[in-house]
Amino acid sequence: MPDSFDLLVVGAGVIGLSVAWRAAQRGLAVCVVERERPGVGASTAAAGLLGPSEPHAWTGPLGAATRAALEAWEDFALELERAADGPVGLRRDGALHIATDTAEVAALEETAAALEAAGIAFERLDAAACARIEPGLRTVAAGLLVPGEAQVDTGRLLARLARACTRAGVQIDIGVEPLSAIRGGDGPVEGVRLSDGTERLAPLTVLACGAWSSQATWLPEAARPPVRPLAGEYVLLAGDPERPPVSRAVRGRLGSIVPRAGGVAWLGTTVRDAGYARLPAVAAVRDVLERWTRLLPALEGLSISSVGCGLRPASPDGLPFVGPSAIEGLAVATGHGRNGIIHAPLAGEAIAALAAGDGLPAVVGPFDPRRAVADAPGTTTADR
Amino acid sequence: MPDSFDLLVVGAGVIGLSVAWRAAQRGLAVCVVERERPGVGASTAAAGLLGPSEPHAWTGPLGAATRAALEAWEDFALELERAADGPVGLRRDGALHIATDTAEVAALEETAAALEAAGIAFERLDAAACARIEPGLRTVAAGLLVPGEAQVDTGRLLARLARACTRAGVQIDIGVEPLSAIRGGDGPVEGVRLSDGTERLAPLTVLACGAWSSQATWLPEAARPPVRPLAGEYVLLAGDPERPPVSRAVRGRLGSIVPRAGGVAWLGTTVRDAGYARLPAVAAVRDVLERWTRLLPALEGLSISSVGCGLRPASPDGLPFVGPSAIEGLAVATGHGRNGIIHAPLAGEAIAALAAGDGLPAVVGPFDPRRAVADAPGTTTADR
Repeated sequence: MPDSFDLLVVGAGVIGLSVAWRAAQRGLAVCVVERERPGVGASTAAAGLLGPSEPHAWTGPLGAATRAALEAWEDFALELERAADGPVGLRRDGALHIATDTAEVAALEETAAALEAAGIAFERLDAAACARIEPGLRTVAAGLLVPGEAQVDTGRLLARLARACTRAGVQIDIGVEPLSAIRGGDGPVEGVRLSDGTERLAPLTVLACGAWSSQATWLPEAARPPVRPLAGEYVLLAGDPERPPVSRAVRGRLGSIVPRAGGVAWLGTTVRDAGYARLPAVAAVRDVLERWTRLLPALEGLSISSVGCGLRPASPDGLPFVGPSAIEGLAVATGHGRNGIIHAPLAGEAIAALAAGDGLPAVVGPFDPRRAVADAPGTTTADR
Repeated sequence: MPDSFDLLVVGAGVIGLSVAWRAAQRGLAVCVVERERPGVGASTAAAGLLGPSEPHAWTGPLGAATRAALEAWEDFALELERAADGPVGLRRDGALHIATDTAEVAALEETAAALEAAGIAFERLDAAACARIEPGLRTVAAGLLVPGEAQVDTGRLLARLARACTRAGVQIDIGVEPLSAIRGGDGPVEGVRLSDGTERLAPLTVLACGAWSSQATWLPEAARPPVRPLAGEYVLLAGDPERPPVSRAVRGRLGSIVPRAGGVAWLGTTVRDAGYARLPAVAAVRDVLERWTRLLPALEGLSISSVGCGLRPASPDGLPFVGPSAIEGLAVATGHGRNGIIHAPLAGEAIAALAAGDGLPAVVGPFDPRRAVADAPGTTTADR
C-alpha cells in the first residue's frame, strides 16, 4: 500500500469525498481516511434539499457562496452520475414551504424576503392553492412554492461519491483514524499516524470530520475549528412507490417530508444542541411523527425503515471553515451547519484548487479558518 | 457435513431452539435450519414478560399450560444460563398493570379476575399507591401489582439458546430454507431438500416457523397449521443505567415499558392484523411514543436504539399447535400468539419427548395440530 500522497483527507462525509474526488480529477494522488463509514456523521442523515433551511443562509458572504454552490449543483450531480455510473436521485420537483399558524406565517415571510433578495423565483400560495398542489396536506395556512428548489438522495449521493473517488484512483481507508500528526516540532503537518499503526504522508492534509473536527486531538487546539454538533433526527419511511405521500418536498416547522425514489420518503428534522450523542431522542422522534401525521394523515399508512440522527457541524458565527488552517500543511473544510450538502461542490472545488496550487476561489474567502470567530445571530437553531 | 439426524427443526425462534436444545440434551442428533437469523420473526421483538398479556391465557386448557410453563421457567432459565455460560436477563421485579381510564379499569378487573382464578398473587393499588411505587408515572387511575411476574431479555435469551444448542452438539444452518419435503408419495416425511441444494434427513421434522408456518409451501396444505401473523411494534430505548425510567415492568394499553440491564428499556407493543409486512407502521410507533411519554414523561429524556416489528403466530382458536401433524414424520410447534416466550420451555420439552419416543405430556394434549379449528373468542386482538 502506498503511504505517500499529494493530498490526505481526514473524513469521508460529503465534504471530504467531494474534496477527494475533485482533487483526483486534477491529477492529484489522494487518500481518504474514515473512522466509521462514508457519510454516517451527518451527510446521509440529511434530507438533501438543495435550498437552505434558514433565511440567513441567503444573506451576506454565506448567501453569495450558497448561490454559487447551488448554481454548481446540477453540473456536479450530472458529472458525478457519469463518473460513478449510477443515479444520485436528483429531482427538480420544487419545494413547498408551509406555515400552519401565525408564528409560522411570520417565519415564512422571512423566507420570502430572503428568496426575494437572493433573486430566487417563488410564488406565494394561500391555503386553497396549497391544497390544490398537495391535496394530502391538512391545516396549512399559507405556503411558498419554490419551483427551482431541487433535492438529492443523500444515501445515493454518498455511495456515488465514494465510487467516483475509487474510480478516480482515490484510496479510501475505512476504520482508521489519526492518532497524531507527523510534523517536525512546530513545522508543517506532513501526514498522520493512524490507529492501525500505519502512516500517510502528504504535503497537504484536510480536516473534514464534520462536527468531530473540533475534537481532533491529533492536532494542536489552535488548529481545530470550533465547531459544535447540532443534532437532527429523521425517520426514513417506506410506502407504495405508486402513491407517494407528496408530489414534491414539503418544508415547515420540524423539518420536511421529502419524496425519494422507490416509495421511500425522508421525514424530519429537528435541531438540537445535545453534545455528541448519536442516538435519536425519544421526544424528537415522537414530535416529528406527531406533527407530520397531523399535517399529512396519509403518512399513517406508511412504514418506518429506520430512525436516525445526524450531527451537523455548526460554527459559532454561522459561516463554514474552508481553507488553510493556522498550521502549514493543514487545511480545513467543515462547519457548514445545515448546508453541508448544498455547499459540497463549492467546498470540494475550493480545497482541490488549494491542493493543486491554484489558490482558493474568492467566494470562500470569508470562510478562512484562521478568522476570529464569535457567536453571531446567524447561528440560529430555530426549528425550521 | 452429516446430513442425517434424529430430529430436524425448521425455524430458529424461541420455540424451535428450545425444542432443539431439549432434544439434544436427551442425546438426539439435531439439526436446525433457519432462513434468516435466530429469533428475528417474533422472539427477539417480544418484551419477554413472564405473564400473559391477555386474561384468556389464564383460563381453560391454555391456562393450565401457561401455569405449567411459568412454573418451569425459572429452572429453564438457570439451566440455560449454565449451559450457555451467560445471562438471559431474568428479573424478578414483578409487574405493575395499570389503567388510566374507565375502559382500562374494566380491563384491569378482567386481569384481576383471571389472576385470582389462576391462583396468582397480586395486589390492587389505587392511584396514590401506584405513584408511590412508580413515582415517574402520570395519569394512572388504578393498578395491579403482580409481585411474582418475572421477565427475560429476549435478545439475550435467543443468543443463549443458540449457544446452548451449539454446545449440546446441535447443527444450526443459517440462510437456508426447505424447498420440498422428502417423502415417498404419501408416505412419511423423511427430511427436506434445502434452498442451497443440500438435504437433511430425519425420522421426525418439526415445523417451528412461527407466523410463517402456514406458508410452508414445501408441505401439503393439510399439514400446515392455520396461523396468521399478528404484528407488534416495539421501540428499544437507551438511557442512563443508573436511572431506569421504571423499577419494574409497567403494563397497560399499548403494551409495556420494561427495564432491562445496561440502561436499556423495551417499549410497546401494538397488536395489528397486517399481513406479513415486516416494517413497523408509522401510526403504531407514533401511538406508542405518544402514549408512553404522556404516561411517563421521563421517557422524553431517553434515546431510541431501534424500532422494530415482530409477527406473532396467532391461531384461529387461540390455542397453540404442539404435537404430531396429519402427516407421519412431521410435528408442529407454533401458534403461541403473544405467549411464545412463556410457553417455550413447555413446547421444547413436549416435542423433545415426542422425538425421543416418550410421548407428549398431557398438558399439551389440547394443542393437537390435527384438531379442527375455528375462530373463537379467545383470539382477541385487544390492545393490551
